[in-house]
Amino acid sequence: MILVTAINPTPLGEGKTTVSVGLTDALNRLGKKTTVALREPSLGPCFGVKGGAAGGGYAQVVPMEDLNLHFTGDFHAITAANNLLAAMLDNHIQQGNALDIDLKRIQWKRCVDMNDRVLRNVTVGLGGPGDGVVREDHFIITVASEIMAILCLSKDIEDLKERLSRIIVAYNRKGEPVRAKELHAVGSMAVLLKDAMKPNIVQTLEGNMALVHGGPFANIAHGCNSIMATKYALKLSDIVVTEAGFGADLGAEKFFDITCQLGDLKPDCAVIVATVRALKYNGGMEKNALLEENLEALEKGIVNLEKHIENVQKYGLPVVVSINRFASDSKNELNFIAQFCEKKQVGFAITEVHGKGGAGGEALGKEVLKQLDKAAAFQPVQTLSLSLEEKIGKVAKEIYGAKDVNYSPKAKKELEKLSLLGFSECPVCMAKTQYSLSDNPALLGRPEGFTLQVKDLYVSAGAGFVVVLTGDIMTMPGLPKVPAAERIDLIDGKIIGLS
Amino acid sequence: MILVTAINPTPLGEGKTTVSVGLTDALNRLGKKTTVALREPSLGPCFGVKGGAAGGGYAQVVPMEDLNLHFTGDFHAITAANNLLAAMLDNHIQQGNALDIDLKRIQWKRCVDMNDRVLRNVTVGLGGPGDGVVREDHFIITVASEIMAILCLSKDIEDLKERLSRIIVAYNRKGEPVRAKELHAVGSMAVLLKDAMKPNIVQTLEGNMALVHGGPFANIAHGCNSIMATKYALKLSDIVVTEAGFGADLGAEKFFDITCQLGDLKPDCAVIVATVRALKYNGGMEKNALLEENLEALEKGIVNLEKHIENVQKYGLPVVVSINRFASDSKNELNFIAQFCEKKQVGFAITEVHGKGGAGGEALGKEVLKQLDKAAAFQPVQTLSLSLEEKIGKVAKEIYGAKDVNYSPKAKKELEKLSLLGFSECPVCMAKTQYSLSDNPALLGRPEGFTLQVKDLYVSAGAGFVVVLTGDIMTMPGLPKVPAAERIDLIDGKIIGLS
Amino acid sequence: MILVTAINPTPLGEGKTTVSVGLTDALNRLGKKTTVALREPSLGPCFGVKGGAAGGGYAQVVPMEDLNLHFTGDFHAITAANNLLAAMLDNHIQQGNALDIDLKRIQWKRCVDMNDRVLRNVTVGLGGPGDGVVREDHFIITVASEIMAILCLSKDIEDLKERLSRIIVAYNRKGEPVRAKELHAVGSMAVLLKDAMKPNIVQTLEGNMALVHGGPFANIAHGCNSIMATKYALKLSDIVVTEAGFGADLGAEKFFDITCQLGDLKPDCAVIVATVRALKYNGGMEKNALLEENLEALEKGIVNLEKHIENVQKYGLPVVVSINRFASDSKNELNFIAQFCEKKQVGFAITEVHGKGGAGGEALGKEVLKQLDKAAAFQPVQTLSLSLEEKIGKVAKEIYGAKDVNYSPKAKKELEKLSLLGFSECPVCMAKTQYSLSDNPALLGRPEGFTLQVKDLYVSAGAGFVVVLTGDIMTMPGLPKVPAAERIDLIDGKIIGLS
Amino acid sequence: MILVTAINPTPLGEGKTTVSVGLTDALNRLGKKTTVALREPSLGPCFGVKGGAAGGGYAQVVPMEDLNLHFTGDFHAITAANNLLAAMLDNHIQQGNALDIDLKRIQWKRCVDMNDRVLRNVTVGLGGPGDGVVREDHFIITVASEIMAILCLSKDIEDLKERLSRIIVAYNRKGEPVRAKELHAVGSMAVLLKDAMKPNIVQTLEGNMALVHGGPFANIAHGCNSIMATKYALKLSDIVVTEAGFGADLGAEKFFDITCQLGDLKPDCAVIVATVRALKYNGGMEKNALLEENLEALEKGIVNLEKHIENVQKYGLPVVVSINRFASDSKNELNFIAQFCEKKQVGFAITEVHGKGGAGGEALGKEVLKQLDKAAAFQPVQTLSLSLEEKIGKVAKEIYGAKDVNYSPKAKKELEKLSLLGFSECPVCMAKTQYSLSDNPALLGRPEGFTLQVKDLYVSAGAGFVVVLTGDIMTMPGLPKVPAAERIDLIDGKIIGLS
Repeated sequence: MILVTAINPTPLGEGKTTVSVGLTDALNRLGKKTTVALREPSLGPCFGVKGGAAGGGYAQVVPMEDLNLHFTGDFHAITAANNLLAAMLDNHIQQGNALDIDLKRIQWKRCVDMNDRVLRNVTVGLGGPGDGVVREDHFIITVASEIMAILCLSKDIEDLKERLSRIIVAYNRKGEPVRAKELHAVGSMAVLLKDAMKPNIVQTLEGNMALVHGGPFANIAHGCNSIMATKYALKLSDIVVTEAGFGADLGAEKFFDITCQLGDLKPDCAVIVATVRALKYNGGMEKNALLEENLEALEKGIVNLEKHIENVQKYGLPVVVSINRFASDSKNELNFIAQFCEKKQVGFAITEVHGKGGAGGEALGKEVLKQLDKAAAFQPVQTLSLSLEEKIGKVAKEIYGAKDVNYSPKAKKELEKLSLLGFSECPVCMAKTQYSLSDNPALLGRPEGFTLQVKDLYVSAGAGFVVVLTGDIMTMPGLPKVPAAERIDLIDGKIIGLS
Repeated sequence: MILVTAINPTPLGEGKTTVSVGLTDALNRLGKKTTVALREPSLGPCFGVKGGAAGGGYAQVVPMEDLNLHFTGDFHAITAANNLLAAMLDNHIQQGNALDIDLKRIQWKRCVDMNDRVLRNVTVGLGGPGDGVVREDHFIITVASEIMAILCLSKDIEDLKERLSRIIVAYNRKGEPVRAKELHAVGSMAVLLKDAMKPNIVQTLEGNMALVHGGPFANIAHGCNSIMATKYALKLSDIVVTEAGFGADLGAEKFFDITCQLGDLKPDCAVIVATVRALKYNGGMEKNALLEENLEALEKGIVNLEKHIENVQKYGLPVVVSINRFASDSKNELNFIAQFCEKKQVGFAITEVHGKGGAGGEALGKEVLKQLDKAAAFQPVQTLSLSLEEKIGKVAKEIYGAKDVNYSPKAKKELEKLSLLGFSECPVCMAKTQYSLSDNPALLGRPEGFTLQVKDLYVSAGAGFVVVLTGDIMTMPGLPKVPAAERIDLIDGKIIGLS
Repeated sequence: MILVTAINPTPLGEGKTTVSVGLTDALNRLGKKTTVALREPSLGPCFGVKGGAAGGGYAQVVPMEDLNLHFTGDFHAITAANNLLAAMLDNHIQQGNALDIDLKRIQWKRCVDMNDRVLRNVTVGLGGPGDGVVREDHFIITVASEIMAILCLSKDIEDLKERLSRIIVAYNRKGEPVRAKELHAVGSMAVLLKDAMKPNIVQTLEGNMALVHGGPFANIAHGCNSIMATKYALKLSDIVVTEAGFGADLGAEKFFDITCQLGDLKPDCAVIVATVRALKYNGGMEKNALLEENLEALEKGIVNLEKHIENVQKYGLPVVVSINRFASDSKNELNFIAQFCEKKQVGFAITEVHGKGGAGGEALGKEVLKQLDKAAAFQPVQTLSLSLEEKIGKVAKEIYGAKDVNYSPKAKKELEKLSLLGFSECPVCMAKTQYSLSDNPALLGRPEGFTLQVKDLYVSAGAGFVVVLTGDIMTMPGLPKVPAAERIDLIDGKIIGLS
Repeated sequence: MILVTAINPTPLGEGKTTVSVGLTDALNRLGKKTTVALREPSLGPCFGVKGGAAGGGYAQVVPMEDLNLHFTGDFHAITAANNLLAAMLDNHIQQGNALDIDLKRIQWKRCVDMNDRVLRNVTVGLGGPGDGVVREDHFIITVASEIMAILCLSKDIEDLKERLSRIIVAYNRKGEPVRAKELHAVGSMAVLLKDAMKPNIVQTLEGNMALVHGGPFANIAHGCNSIMATKYALKLSDIVVTEAGFGADLGAEKFFDITCQLGDLKPDCAVIVATVRALKYNGGMEKNALLEENLEALEKGIVNLEKHIENVQKYGLPVVVSINRFASDSKNELNFIAQFCEKKQVGFAITEVHGKGGAGGEALGKEVLKQLDKAAAFQPVQTLSLSLEEKIGKVAKEIYGAKDVNYSPKAKKELEKLSLLGFSECPVCMAKTQYSLSDNPALLGRPEGFTLQVKDLYVSAGAGFVVVLTGDIMTMPGLPKVPAAERIDLIDGKIIGLS
């Protein structure tokens, strides 16, 4: 199993999904039966900025349009299950609130699979006595629902039901957790999720198998496709390529510490995707100037890549650096990176899968195969027996490079409460900006000596991890000034504007 | 084409869908290639009171479970399209409100396919400057979305797009309508609805074809399955059985005046479903006493059936009364109804399709075939060239039996405004209680001499009708004290509690 | 004691306060020691449309500026007491809600003495657990507070405390009333109202005594100055002139049926203020044409005056009609009214107090003295032992001239509930439009044959009356496009713009 | 002029007002014509925890009850002026929003003089088109209104009007300030405040003059009585004793840097009030153990007093430490403090004014007179020409003892904006916890090496200072579980429970 991850994302896009698909096609060309396991795209961003998420160019998963729209309805099922639980919660309160739920300590949020900022903070239940109890509520985007994380971490339907039943929907007025099972909502939710639990099989443009299933956020959740899909893929092929959200500090860390630990998976190698221009951007160059050769900026920015390499190595895995080639990349620049990788004793390959499909990924494929020959000794950073505070400290210091961790008074209180409630053995799921190794999005490159600020914590008891908030995390995106939706159309039965 | 309709619904259920399915099976048994065209059930009520809607007993459509859950995802697609338009509307306002939309005169509402009363009245956009503009909003259940009505009335994708573009989402500060096309939302909505537009084919338990497609509310919308499905059914078979929501005063009236007129359909016969106990209930008997024979109550209650018979005859159609037989029905009672029907010169049949499937409907089938031999001369009650006020008056007086119509000051103002805006030629869609022929749910039987109170009006410009509100119409149900959802479960891969 | 009342108010203003002051000055000139008892003006309208309320011209109470601003702080004290009770109510809920108050059935509203429409409907308690429980709330203007009505109806401090303790602030989840005393708020409220209970003595421009105290709304409350002030005035002088809000159908009815009955007062005579132009307006003339002589319109409009005369006579009192003279009044018109009064056998006088002070009121004064010589036999219309429904019926039919009363379902339910709770013996306080004798503000003159629509009822248990809502009653005014506040200023220590 | 200030407040109360009154009485006994200038108490806390604020025992201002209730109505006038501005603001928006006010950047808040936590965060304007524009709003307690600060800093009515006109009520959508004068609200506000501007004269129990006027918060405002009252006192007597809110780090700093600088006042001496038990509490003793002698804790805690002494000396003033004596104070403890003061070369006196009135303050009076003989050389710490950042830095480091200041991203942005808008020359008004010299309420004694966190800034342009928020500052208190209001009553015309 190979994880494709990346340096910290820049506004330019690095092409992680494209490399995952291209690498899969390349490995199949090289005679290895390889399957790629990916996340399903969300409708929200599709109509917002991006316009689609299925790889790009000749390294794509098809049918792209179905994937980007309703696909097999998995996300709709998750939305329905999420909102059924919410409706049952508010109905319970309306019918007398026998569980004594504290209206100001409700954790469960409604969701829609849409970028809709006005739903971030709402007041519900206005109107007469029959219109429910008034309270503040919040909508999140479906991919941020705990049910999404649960679906991706469940081994089977029984496990799913077990996890759903553990969801903490609220606290009662004594401060004790109120769970989904106490609302008798688990059976119905499971019925709604029955088919969504089944991984979806599609293919790459070159006809190789792709399992596309689930898609949790990579900040308040763990950001990887479902364990079931990955396990199916492992059964069906020799090699599985999978992908994690954002950069390696968030996506790979969570894949290793949460998904692999909880799902009993053993990865064998990691590919870190980077581009020349993204490294130069990390070195402080202006976005508009990136087409020019600039070895100084490259040297200054490559420390970001360096840190991610070192991080992956801490998990005991061999690394291959994949540079997604662009026309503007100069030979000097590419050579510089090649030499850097040599010095760091990690694999290196230039890939051109966007323009050439699997053929453009053969160099990367070979390099990966070389690394797979080595014996990997995967080990997590977050040892589960450590205390929550120790786990946070390890990730902060070893992975992010922080000097220290500072807890807000509220975070301290929650830390204590969660330990008392018995969640110490959970892995922590860090909700941090993706733009920097630190918690300050402006610090590019490889920041050091900073103090990580922990603002708050809460437990996703169904998913089985403790979320650690280090900043304002957006769980419901907004639409841009001119949304992609304005360009999308259906002309003579053909969809345009989706890509 | 045969319409199955009913007397005013009682708390007991009359079995309209069951008769539709049973009649279809019976007609096929009698050698007529017959298809039934039905509405899709909504997820909301499924987890609320009812627990499912696909006919019953041996007169059922299968696979029942899929039908009652996500089915082919049509309702999810409608929900997504509805909410995309809402998100684009609020995003337009947030980005500067170039269309000068009046925040207090927004018509478009968000929707979910869930019974969730706390969403009836909400405040959205709370939070910081980036979290949108604060305003009051409302969620309706998906079946109450204008998009549901549009989908059911559209002839093809082009017509769908045309209708979507006409939707009035709000009024600007000058009082002029702001339409969906001005928000550039039509293309994306059409893309989301592309597959939902296709009618779904399933079958009855006896293997006959059933088209199940769309399901608009029968109060603020027209309450019939899609015109596309009905037309497909007409092409694919000799006879089509279809069904309309609630009693004949709402469902049949709208089927004839809206669906048939706008869709250019010519029905040939109507079946009015009734039960002995529902007629006795209409005659004033207590719910608990209905098992006893009571000819007096029957005589007193049969006037409700009488009025519905007369109403259908006004549309120029022959009528068959179908009595769904129950064990408690006495011979005297059944004879009484038979004689009544003879006197009224309409067909009559006792049906037992729930227990016996198509076989139990053969008597009804034969009676229907007899009526089909007669020449029907379908004509609407709402002539489109009449003014809105005249149409309302005709329905109120000729169909409901009202003496008069009274308009609230607000309704009067809206009536004027809608005429000025050019909506006089639209049919009116009456939103009235289903429990009485009048607008007072307590008046059973055949009320007379009452004044219909019109509280408000608005146009569903995309659907193409003017909604006339005569009371507080619930467009978002709530869950009961113990929702069906608490009994539904998934045990060893089998769904239980859904029926 | 003389009550000054008026025909139904028109947009032109009839000058009731001016006549009250002028009549007082006139009676003093005629050798009768006379005191006028008036209501205090509210700050809200002062900065809204009107700009002040202390009589006008030479028939004014002084110091006008203090009266129109904070005066002796009575209204501020009432505001504080009202809002202390609200704060204690919400604090009780926040601290555990031991009284099990139903959050959707809270009756008590906050108040401000300001025209501030955005406070009509608010949501309070948003924020964290420490920021209170979320609920919908409403602000009313201080004069609409039940405390204002209580202060005006209380005989002394003990009675005030007793009434405060009876205030129903909410209903609990069983539907039982929760009273102010259960919140232990009565002592503090009484402390806050201690000085506000004391009537305020000022004087007319001609130096005669004026007691100005209290000022409840004349729709949801009884619209008269305080009983304490009236009784003081009765002790201090031979004759007391007092005034009631709006027209005689609201103000006089409530003065007689509520104030006099509850306060054990016996009025001796009533002056009905009218103007030629207001009578012509009631006869259907356009506002702009009123300067022209028009005997036809006068004849058509005088029926309004006629009905008010008849109404006052039902209470057993002699009547004097006072015509406030304007330059545009023609001799023919004035004669017409004089003859009309003669025919009706009531007193008649033309008054010019605005321009001439007490001298301009001597004719009226003499006419009044003549009537006082007759023996008055005051008797209420609302006999307290009648049921609530009977009282409503009597006022509707005898005073308003309605044919019938129609109750909404909600009103019916409340009627039953209030009877069960023991409020049958309370007088009813009708909340009706002031612009018509009927509940339809467009019906001028003397409407007949109409059905009074009762929408809702509630009890002001502290004040001791049941409020009957017959329309949308505004209890919080808004500011106009250009509020009077924009013109008010303080220049060199002098207030300008207030009048 | 003598300022009475204190060490950081503890839950025990130190008796600053009592000492101010007692010192005044003592100085009059010693033959010096002395007036005390104090703040007016707020109604809110009066019904909340405290139950009154007019000094205590024999060192009190009378009439205590009037002072604690409506007094002369000054606070009601401020409330009215504050809320008139708010009503005019929302009316402007409702009438078309010609000033293009950004609804999410409104600064002006409504106020009530009540502890009412549910009003902290509200949504207003709900309802129909006539009910205003929906937005989030906040209520603060009257003493936190900028108008309170303005009233206390104004030299005369002209200055008041000038300051009112400068109030920034909101920002428009371009980010430019919208001021009160643009809403044409200044004249009316001035009219409402006309009488409130006049200082109120009362007396101490021993008959000496007390000026009681104004009472702004000591966190988001400057916490001192009005400049007008202080100046009147200076004219009317030889010595003026005044008092500042909270400890010397907040109250004295603001009195010196804001009040004295802006009001051109020159203080001559400062009294720092402390108690033995408060110093021991600062030394870490438990609240329950404070009755025991504990020299160690005293030694550990006296550093708090030490820092305040040093701070006052930075302003060039001589210091007298006043120990309010309690029965539990041991001789050793008192001696220890006396010796400490001797070492620090500041005056020292034990006072017993609560029990003995002016007689108990003579020692302090003599000590003060001794210090007044010395030449004071008052100089502010916040030199106005410094940048905002420099001023914040000086206060943080020199007064609080911070090592450093850290600005949140939002604070940085606001800092820039305020400089651009021309507010650099304003003094800064620090909103910090009163319980510690630092911004962490748990750090007692004399914390060092901490970094002051600046969360946000805003300008009170009318008051003329920039508020610097270093934590969550409560501007609307809540009521406790059992509010004082429950104990207050009016029995036989006498107020009980107020003290």
